[in-house]
Parts: sequence; structure tokens; C-alpha cells
Amino acid sequence: MFKIQYTTDDDFTGRSRRPAGRTDDIIPIVRDVLTAVRDGGDKAVRELTLKFDKSCPDNLLTTQEELEAAAKEVPDDLKKAIDIARQNIEKFHRSQLPSEIHKVQTSEGITCWQKAVAIEKIGIYIPGGTAPLFSTVLMLAIPAKIAGCKEIVLCSPPRSGGSINPVVLYCAKILGINKVFKIGGSQAIAAMAYGTESVPKVSKIFGPGNKFVTVAKQLVNSSETAIDMPAGPSELAVIADQNTNPVYAAADLLSQCEHGTDSQVGLFVTTNDKADEIIAEAERQLALLPRRDIAAQSFQNSFAVITGNTDQAVRLSNLWAPEHLIISTDDCDTLAEKVVNAGSVFIGKYACESAGDYASGTNHTLPTNGAANAYSGLNMDSFMKKITFQTITETGIRTIGPAIETMAAAEQLDAHKNAVTVRLQR
Amino acid sequence: MFKIQYTTDDDFTGRSRRPAGRTDDIIPIVRDVLTAVRDGGDKAVRELTLKFDKSCPDNLLTTQEELEAAAKEVPDDLKKAIDIARQNIEKFHRSQLPSEIHKVQTSEGITCWQKAVAIEKIGIYIPGGTAPLFSTVLMLAIPAKIAGCKEIVLCSPPRSGGSINPVVLYCAKILGINKVFKIGGSQAIAAMAYGTESVPKVSKIFGPGNKFVTVAKQLVNSSETAIDMPAGPSELAVIADQNTNPVYAAADLLSQCEHGTDSQVGLFVTTNDKADEIIAEAERQLALLPRRDIAAQSFQNSFAVITGNTDQAVRLSNLWAPEHLIISTDDCDTLAEKVVNAGSVFIGKYACESAGDYASGTNHTLPTNGAANAYSGLNMDSFMKKITFQTITETGIRTIGPAIETMAAAEQLDAHKNAVTVRLQR
Repeated sequence: MFKIQYTTDDDFTGRSRRPAGRTDDIIPIVRDVLTAVRDGGDKAVRELTLKFDKSCPDNLLTTQEELEAAAKEVPDDLKKAIDIARQNIEKFHRSQLPSEIHKVQTSEGITCWQKAVAIEKIGIYIPGGTAPLFSTVLMLAIPAKIAGCKEIVLCSPPRSGGSINPVVLYCAKILGINKVFKIGGSQAIAAMAYGTESVPKVSKIFGPGNKFVTVAKQLVNSSETAIDMPAGPSELAVIADQNTNPVYAAADLLSQCEHGTDSQVGLFVTTNDKADEIIAEAERQLALLPRRDIAAQSFQNSFAVITGNTDQAVRLSNLWAPEHLIISTDDCDTLAEKVVNAGSVFIGKYACESAGDYASGTNHTLPTNGAANAYSGLNMDSFMKKITFQTITETGIRTIGPAIETMAAAEQLDAHKNAVTVRLQR
Repeated sequence: MFKIQYTTDDDFTGRSRRPAGRTDDIIPIVRDVLTAVRDGGDKAVRELTLKFDKSCPDNLLTTQEELEAAAKEVPDDLKKAIDIARQNIEKFHRSQLPSEIHKVQTSEGITCWQKAVAIEKIGIYIPGGTAPLFSTVLMLAIPAKIAGCKEIVLCSPPRSGGSINPVVLYCAKILGINKVFKIGGSQAIAAMAYGTESVPKVSKIFGPGNKFVTVAKQLVNSSETAIDMPAGPSELAVIADQNTNPVYAAADLLSQCEHGTDSQVGLFVTTNDKADEIIAEAERQLALLPRRDIAAQSFQNSFAVITGNTDQAVRLSNLWAPEHLIISTDDCDTLAEKVVNAGSVFIGKYACESAGDYASGTNHTLPTNGAANAYSGLNMDSFMKKITFQTITETGIRTIGPAIETMAAAEQLDAHKNAVTVRLQR
């Protein structure tokens, strides 16, 4: 972790810049996969799975028997933990549902309103690997179910034995997802975006993945399929003052460092002494971590900025726009109100970031790489769209009709004007 | 307009398919423009403006004098019309602002909430041409102002004299937008995405444009800048029964046909007789339109589907997912409740689509090309992002801590687990 003594915003911005992840080189490869699946359907999916994963399961679709067998493989304590997480995630996301429809009379005889309606068909991608992220199944499928999405398709790469990790299957099962496909990588994204004989075409695709998955999501997004948000490496900022517990702060910083060598964390700290204390503690803890090789590399690429006071710290954090932000200062409640750019904010000494990753109730799919400037983390809005409605009475069209005619004429759109004129002539 | 007698969903879907707009050929051109502006700043913007527009204004930024002079060129009746529209748009969008923050206790000692915060810096693109869309300035800048966006940058191509259309400037002025740049095309999108010496870098870009603008928005969106939504040709569906007024329905259909030769409209009508009546009336009105050459071409590519009953009509409309939907049937209120895929819905005989384009209060920036399956039209959410916050007490971490430890261990993320363990050990 390198230290930055704050001087100017420009200096801070330059030195805290995130490394640019280039993906241009794999675009042609991914484009070929997309075309192959769009034109070739299941057959192409099988061929690509064989090519990339070295084997392809007989059935792409996980059977009911496989779903039920998976449940038996999950230890009871993990089931209980998942149940606690599920309840909290459900509670928080359900609270975000729009309340009753609010009709607004904008002028006499003109009533306008918005209605949130579930996206009918969505796709969820869950990456494979030694420790698949079953928690992401909860974070994506629970709000989708609350929203009322009718068709939820899940794709995840098969393990060497041809099945999907049992905890992922267990989470899918308890949430009532029946269409779980053993498909990974960019071919999974293609299958959900275009549809195949067995995989239903969806309108929006959610979930993390490697760079092939990320590029595939970007490419299908530029044509016809919506995606959750741009993906980037995990990141965390901690705002600390002289009273911050260095053991907690160090553990929090390392919790994001272990995600991958390209993860980045930032410490915004009021004094140089506290910076040194937290860094030393982090180095001590780092040596004990199973994933220390990964964490050490991302910790090395991370920064601590000495800010003098907490107001400056939160201002710089807003400039950096972190995915996660822990505020662990005496004035944490006041500071939290000043946050304008962040994905998810954790306030106070007990609010560790891993609480939000798993079980406190908030969503863990959040904007990275500075996207928190413009994007929200996943929330109920992500699974619904808002449709506007309006009714106009005869009085209503008489009230605003002449204004519409004038404006349409000024834009030289006479047919637009005429749609009003024929109504006013009555 | 060609007629489809409904037989099956597949037949309808095949015959109502939108023409695919290919833009692959211009991607390299646009990519070069983006790189040039990113690396060359204002100088590159000037060179590209000279190259594409044949001249470049001395000042890229519109001066206060120019803004004030523009107001004098706008006729009083148009100012009054704009004022009516502005009030209604303000009223409807202000009503969408989230009410007070709702804090949720998910478990004992754990409190989670969401807060909507304005996107700080946004860019608005307004296309040029003979009749620039000043109404779009209202539709983008009014909600941005209500949201509290701090920096609003507007780019619009200069006319041959080197200035921007005065009505566009007038709308910018009354809404307090001071940064109005005489820049058009993909170089405008690049300038706002990357920033130049004079154009501030923004986090999200809004607004319509030609295919170069559309591709530029797509390309900057795949790296660092958010955009409003994918753009496509305008479209409208009308649901009609035996009592629908054919003059109104015909005028409504034509109002979208005049946008461009690639616009498409669909008539979902219960009887063949009514289909014939509306089509004949549309052909009569078409001949009288100033933009009849454009409208005739898109009308020819449009369809009328005979559905037998109104339930079938709304079901097929949901399959097509139109940008605009007018429901002009006896059971319009009941049918409106069955709409699940549409951008904006107009209910009853007086609710013409052009009301929503200009002055009723709803937004006219809406999802096209089937994107209404997954996207909302512009609304207050588009100008804000929702940040989640959480506080956790000592009791809170004791309540959910063990569940987090179990789940993190199962995902082999020991540093995540450790962030809880260090807190529970106290």
C-alpha cells in the first residue's frame, strides 16, 4: 500500500487512478462465440463447451433430480446461514417496492402516472471456479422473485464431473428457479441473449464473470439485451480517523484485496500515524491469509491518502467513487450524509463490508471502476421498468392542445400537430 | 400498411419483426473520432467540426450574449407554449422524487436504507437539422434540474452561420444551462465523455442523434460513461375496436410515421372492417402532409393485425413492446391495466401521442426497438443513483456474524470471514 500526502485534487486523482483493464484483444473471439450461438443454437453451445471446458454434460438443463440431490450435499449450518441471509435480503428488497400508484393531474383534464412492472424474462450468470458465488444467486434471484419476473434462467459452468456446484443449485432450488443450465462463459451469455432450442431468450442479463463474460455482456447490450451494469474489479474505501480500530480497518481492506490481483482498496485517513498503524496491521494479517498471494498483490497496488480531516476524506472518497465505503470515524453519521458517489456505505465500527456481501440485506452487486458516479447498485428498480400512463379528457386536450400545436409546428412536425387539430375540430 | 390476420404468436412475431439497423460499418469511423478527441481535446474537436460540418465557430461555448439574443428571436406564442409544457413536465417529474428515506431494520441491530442522490455531471445532446428538437431540451434538462445535477453540459451542432438554433438556446437559458457548446456528431459525445480543455467530462450522456451519435454513445458506454438508453427509430402502436374514431387513429399513426423512413407503427384492431377504414383514412391524410414522402415510406413498412378481440390485441402489443401505445377502445381503462411492455401508454380517444411528446408532462425519451421489455422511459431515476447505507451495532454483528462466517468460508473467502471474526472476538 503506497501513501499519498494530499496536496491537490489533481495530484490525488492522478495517483489514485485505477489501472485500465484492456479487453479489446478478446472482442473478436467473443464476437465469434456470439455469432456461433446465435446461428447454431444448442449445437453450437455444446461444441463451444467442449472446446473451452474440455467436456460437455449430456443434459444442458439440470434435472429436478439433480436439484434435489444437491440439497442433500449442503451442510445444515450452511443452510441455516443461507436462510438468515435470505430473510434479510428479502426484507430489505421488499421494502423498496414502489408504494401504491400516485396519479398526478398536471393540467385540468390531464392525469399522468408511472407503474413499475416486472421485466418478464431475466437471465442470471453465476461463475464457476473452486468456490462458486452462491451468495450471488441470492442477491439476483431474491429481488427478481419479489419483482415478479416470470421466467428466471440461470447459467453456470459445469464442473469437471458435469454438474454445477451443489450450493449454487441449492440456492436456485429454494428460490424456485427451475431452469438451471450447465453453460459457462460467453456462450452462456449468447444463449440467454439470443435464445436456443433449450435456453429461453431473456430481456436482461445479470451477474459477474471473467473478462469473456464481461465482454459478451457488453456486446449483447449494444444490440438487444439489457445488462445489470458494467463490471470491474472489486474495490473498497475505508475512511478512518485517529480513533479507528486498526485491526478492523486492516481486516476490511484485506477482505476486498483477496478477490483478485486487480482488486483495489483505498484508505482515506486523517493522520500519518494511523495510516502507518493500519498498514502494519494489514501486513501482519495478510501473512496469515490462505489467499495471501492474491491479496498481497492487490494490497500493493492500493493507496492510503492522508487527508488532515474527515471532511476532506469524504470529499476525496466522492472523487474516487468507490464500490464499497466503510466510514469508521467518530463522526461517521455526519460524514455518511456527505457521501454522493459510492455503491454501498457501511457506517460505524461494526459495519464490515462482508456483512453486505452476505447477510445484512443490502445487495452486493454494485458499481465499480468509478461507475458509482452514475450507476446504482442492484435494487428493485433493476428488475422492473416503469411505464408511464396518461388519460386526457376533452377539457384536457382543449387546455394543452394549442400549446402542442404551436410547438409541433415550430419543430416542423405537422402530423404531430394534426393529431391534436383533428381532436380540437370536433 | 400491410394487414396480418392473427393466427399464431410465431406468425405474428415473424411478420411484425422490426428491420435490423446495421451500424457495424461506421464503428471504425466513430472509434477514430473518439480517439482523436480523447487525445487531442478542443483542437481535435475543432478539426473534426471543420471536416464534418465544413466550418467551425470561433467560440465553441455559446456566450451569455448569444443566449440572451436567442430569446428575442423566439415568438411570444411559442414562449407561452413552452411555458405550459415546462410546468406540466416539472409537475409530473417532481412527483416522482423519492419520498423521505425509509430505514429498514432487517435483523436486530442492523439498519439498511437507500438514498437517491443526483448524478453530479450530465451531458445533453440535441441534434441539429432544419427543425431542432427543442422539446428534448425540456425533457432532459427539467428532470436533471429537479434531481439536482450540479453540472449540465449541452452540445448541439452549429448551423451554417455558426450558432445554435435560437429555440434550443432559449430553452437552455430558461432552465439555467450555461454550458452550451456548438459541437455536433460523435465528436460532441467524445468531448462530453472524456472532457476537453473547454468541455467538462460528464458521467452520463442523454439525448437522441443520428447513427454516428448513437454508435458513439454505445462505444463510450462500454468503457466509462453511462448513457440514457439504446436509441432506435420511433414507433407507435394503436389498439382499436369497432368504435375507435378512424380520423384520430389515422392521425396518430401518421404522427410517428413522419419521424423518419425507418419509423414503424402497428395497428392492433379487432375487426377487418375497422382496419380498412383506418388505413383508408390514413392514406387520405397522408397525401396532405408536408412530410408525406417520409411518412409514406414508413407507413408502407407498418402493419395492422386483426385480433378478433381487445384482450388478444393487448397481448400482442405486449409481445411487440412498442415505444408508444395508444389504447382507443371502449374498454381502454381495463386494457391499460394489462400492459406490461410499453414505454408510454395513452388511454382514451383524446390522449394523442403528441400530447406526451410535448406538453402533458410525461417524458418523451422512451425505449424503442423492443427495449421496452427491459427499459423504462426517462424518469427521475435516470438522473439519480441510489446508494445503500447500513449501520450495524454490536448486537447486530453478533446476530448475523456467524452466518457471514459460515457463508464466507463456504465461498473460500477467508479474509471476508476474518473481517467478522475480529469483531466477534472482542
